[in-house]
Amino acid sequence: MANYPEKVYLNGEILDASQAKISVFDRGFLFGDGIYEVMLQINGSFFYGAEHLERLVECLKKINIEFDVSRLPNTIDQLLLASDLQQRDCLLYIQVTRGVAPRIHSFPKRIEPTVMIYVLPFTLPEINNKPISVITDKDFRWHRCDIKMTSLLGNVMANDTAIKGGHYETVFHRDGKVTEASHSNIFFVKNGIVYTHPADENILNGITREIVIQICQENNIRIEEKAILQKDITKMDEAFLTGTSTQIASVQKIDEHIYYEGNTPGETTKKLQLLFLELKNIYAP
Amino acid sequence: MANYPEKVYLNGEILDASQAKISVFDRGFLFGDGIYEVMLQINGSFFYGAEHLERLVECLKKINIEFDVSRLPNTIDQLLLASDLQQRDCLLYIQVTRGVAPRIHSFPKRIEPTVMIYVLPFTLPEINNKPISVITDKDFRWHRCDIKMTSLLGNVMANDTAIKGGHYETVFHRDGKVTEASHSNIFFVKNGIVYTHPADENILNGITREIVIQICQENNIRIEEKAILQKDITKMDEAFLTGTSTQIASVQKIDEHIYYEGNTPGETTKKLQLLFLELKNIYAP
Repeated sequence: MANYPEKVYLNGEILDASQAKISVFDRGFLFGDGIYEVMLQINGSFFYGAEHLERLVECLKKINIEFDVSRLPNTIDQLLLASDLQQRDCLLYIQVTRGVAPRIHSFPKRIEPTVMIYVLPFTLPEINNKPISVITDKDFRWHRCDIKMTSLLGNVMANDTAIKGGHYETVFHRDGKVTEASHSNIFFVKNGIVYTHPADENILNGITREIVIQICQENNIRIEEKAILQKDITKMDEAFLTGTSTQIASVQKIDEHIYYEGNTPGETTKKLQLLFLELKNIYAP
Repeated sequence: MANYPEKVYLNGEILDASQAKISVFDRGFLFGDGIYEVMLQINGSFFYGAEHLERLVECLKKINIEFDVSRLPNTIDQLLLASDLQQRDCLLYIQVTRGVAPRIHSFPKRIEPTVMIYVLPFTLPEINNKPISVITDKDFRWHRCDIKMTSLLGNVMANDTAIKGGHYETVFHRDGKVTEASHSNIFFVKNGIVYTHPADENILNGITREIVIQICQENNIRIEEKAILQKDITKMDEAFLTGTSTQIASVQKIDEHIYYEGNTPGETTKKLQLLFLELKNIYAP
C-alpha cells in the first residue's frame, strides 16, 4: 500500500502526483485543520460510499468547514478515468482542509477549502485471515475522536510504536475503558455476546464498525455497545479489529495475553468474517 | 498580523511566498506530523532565540524526527536578508515536518524532513496594555501538550470560539485544574503569590512562561508551579496570560467573573509587565 498514486485531484485539476502541491499556508499544513475519508471500490462500486461521504459531511460540519460535496461523485469518476481505475478495485483517499490563509489560529472568513483526492489500486483479500498481534496504551489523544481529522500526530505515534515492535496496532484505553485502536475499532466477544465501545466522542464511528453491528443484529448475534474494561481484556473469549482496509481482523495476541494458538480465530469472529464476505459479494449501492 | 510574508525558506530555497509549495504527500499535510516554533527579533536579536531553538530540538526528538538544527541560524540570516528584515523587529516562524512519503500511519524510514521558515515585520508594544477577556472550556486536547506540534485542530477550534465571541483566548481546565490557554500560558495571583501549572505533559512550557518564573525568582516574588483549581478561579486576585507575542497580558474578565473594572490591572501583573519590559531592553543573547 505504500505507493504514490499516479494522479491527484487538487482543487479542480487532475495532476501527476509529483506535481500536486499546496501552499505552505494551507491550514492543513500549518494546523492539521482538515477532515479525511478513505473508502474502497469493490466489484465496481464504492463499498458503503454514501455512508463515507455522509460522514465526511458530518465531520466538516463539526469543525465549521463549509464545503459542498454534491460534485464529489462526478470528480471521483473523472479521477478514476484519468487513473485508469474505473470499475477496478481501488482505495480512494479524500482530504478537505479549511484552505489557505495567513497563519492565525481562529478560522479565517471567506476562504476556499482545499480538496485533494487520489485513488490507488488496492485489492482486499476475501477475508482478512492474518491472526494479528496488538499492544495497548493509554489513550493520550484528544477528546473528540469522533472527528475524522488530519491532526493525527497522536495516532501516528501510537501506530508507529506498534509497527516498530512487530505488531499491527495499538489499542487505546481511557479511564480504564478500552476505546479503539489508532486506525481501527476494536470488538470483544464473551460468552457469545459481542461488545464494542459506544459511538461517542471517545471513538471514531467506523463504517465497518457500523456494518458489523448491523450484521450482528440481522443474524441474531447479541451485540452490546458497551466499553470493555482494560482489566477485563484477558477475560474475553475473542477480540477483533475492524476498519475499511482492515475489514475484520482477528486479534490473536494483546500485549502478553494470547487468545488462541496458531490460526484458529474464535467462532464468532469467523462467523462475522464470513457474513462480512457475503455482504461484500452481494453489495450494491 | 494576518499578512503573508514576502519570502519563504523551503527546503534549501528562498522563494516568493506564493511559490512556496509542498507536496500533498507531506506528512505535515496528511497527518499534522510536525513541530513548529515562533520567536521574535527585538532590537536586532532573537529574544531568547537559543531557548526557542532548544525547545524545537527537544520536541523533534520527542516525536523521532531527526533533524540537524545547527545550520538554522545561518539559514535564518539569509532569509532575513532576502526579506529585508535584518536587525528589524519581526516574527520568525519555523516548521519542521517528518517529510514526504506515501500515506501510511507509521513513520517512514530515510526521508528528509521538510523545513519551512518565514519572517514577518512585527513590532511588539512595550507593554501589552490591553485588559483582556477570556472564556474557559474543558481541555479536550491530547495529553502530550508539552509537544509543540502542528496537529493543532483542538487549539484552533478553542481559539476560534473565543475570537468569535469577542474574547482573546480560551483557557482550558482538565480534571478540575486550570492548565493553559489555546496558544498561551496562564498565571494567577493570590495574596501576592504567583501560581501557574507545572511544566508537565498537560501544558506547553512557554519560553515567556519560563522568563516570568525567572523574573519572579530574581525579584523576590513568590512563585509556585501549582495548578489552580477551576472552582477557585473567581477567588484569585489577578490573572494574566503569557506568550511570545502575547507577552504578559492582564486578564480583566474570565467567563462572567470580572477581576477589575477599567484599565487597572493588579499590582503584581503590572510589576511583572515592567520587569519584563526592562528585560527586553537589556536583553543580549
